[in-house]
Amino acid sequence: MNPELKEGERIDDLERSGLKIIQNPGKFCFGMDAVLLSGYVKASPGDRILDLGCGTGIIPILLTAKTKADHFTGIELLPEMAEMASRSVKMNSLEKKIDIITGDIREAAALFEAASFDIVTSNPPYMNEGHGLKAKDYSRAVAKHEICCSLTDVVRAAAFCLKEGGILTMVHRPFRLADLFTVMRSNRIEPKRMRFVYPSMQDPPCLVLLGGRKGGKRFLTTEAPLVIYDSEGKYSKEMTQLYGF
Amino acid sequence: MNPELKEGERIDDLERSGLKIIQNPGKFCFGMDAVLLSGYVKASPGDRILDLGCGTGIIPILLTAKTKADHFTGIELLPEMAEMASRSVKMNSLEKKIDIITGDIREAAALFEAASFDIVTSNPPYMNEGHGLKAKDYSRAVAKHEICCSLTDVVRAAAFCLKEGGILTMVHRPFRLADLFTVMRSNRIEPKRMRFVYPSMQDPPCLVLLGGRKGGKRFLTTEAPLVIYDSEGKYSKEMTQLYGF
Repeated sequence: MNPELKEGERIDDLERSGLKIIQNPGKFCFGMDAVLLSGYVKASPGDRILDLGCGTGIIPILLTAKTKADHFTGIELLPEMAEMASRSVKMNSLEKKIDIITGDIREAAALFEAASFDIVTSNPPYMNEGHGLKAKDYSRAVAKHEICCSLTDVVRAAAFCLKEGGILTMVHRPFRLADLFTVMRSNRIEPKRMRFVYPSMQDPPCLVLLGGRKGGKRFLTTEAPLVIYDSEGKYSKEMTQLYGF
Repeated sequence: MNPELKEGERIDDLERSGLKIIQNPGKFCFGMDAVLLSGYVKASPGDRILDLGCGTGIIPILLTAKTKADHFTGIELLPEMAEMASRSVKMNSLEKKIDIITGDIREAAALFEAASFDIVTSNPPYMNEGHGLKAKDYSRAVAKHEICCSLTDVVRAAAFCLKEGGILTMVHRPFRLADLFTVMRSNRIEPKRMRFVYPSMQDPPCLVLLGGRKGGKRFLTTEAPLVIYDSEGKYSKEMTQLYGF
């Protein structure tokens, strides 16, 4: 076994700039949503990016290849997940670019300096209240259900950490959109751009990509749809580009 | 000239159940948005429907053919527009089904009984603040810009007139979606279903159809997209059905 791996873990190729990631198939593994989110982030040279609830570290790791931002911080509640993410950072020789911090985003004000990030990203738990079955594995349950942090906690942490004019970029489920907009507005993050992800043009959207600006003016741009499968049932051209196949 | 018409007016065939409508091309004429809204309304036998800002009367007139609702009321601010709508109602022999009232929706509490409608519809002015050029013709300007009523006025009137559990169905521009959701929630109308209208799958959406329930639980369903033009640039199958061609 590879010396970087613990029992049950494996190394997955990210098909992008030679990047790899450690995952444990028995615990929470990243999904398409994280890949789509990483493709939706617009960053400039010099930017500092914070990922709230970074899990395996997938988003900061992909963003090193997909953006020109300078530095990335991932914060993760579960110590074993943060430790695994740190090993992935080391395996990719990204220690100078990415910091992984173990901590609770509800304590962001104690962990980070106010208004110190240009961009905050998050692929938060989607499910609230009685929606969806809870996973037996704790890392999966925490990643999918609002057990350890609510949408309000995520947006409040982002509002604290973002510079004025900075951008919160999230992926979420469309059924929470009214929650997303009302929570963002009540934290002075104005929804500015949005894109729906449709499995096909005959289906309801499965995901929504959303960008909000701290202190932004009111005007929301909804972009052309992102369609996962083409009419032949194959990955669409844009999806293959996003995945780097 | 037809005795029902005044100078500058014409009669348009609605291509649906033999219905016709009087319009004046020099003033505000109905658009695709009104037709799409009329197709998005779900009504049951016995329902009473109120249309806020009914203009030419297009929505109540189409809904007599597209739904099984019992009775329709349209309220319109501009007297000459309301008078023309009344002539269209008479021309279609719908006087027993449709009442057209001249009045200001900001005075809904004085004009209607509280909680007396099952469904409220509105194709309100889309533009606020500095967005878009103002039309020279007053009826067009009032229909397009929030000169005489704001989104809050429309939603507040709907919240007053709807029964508990009743539905507000609107068509609007996607750039106002965060406004729509926050104003609806602050008036106890929960966004429940939503559908984006895309010119083609390569374009951003041009319209959003939205249904909210007074006192409804939080869960928003986003439906499969409505695409106006197919890949050959012709009206899609669904559009031809909606227009009744």
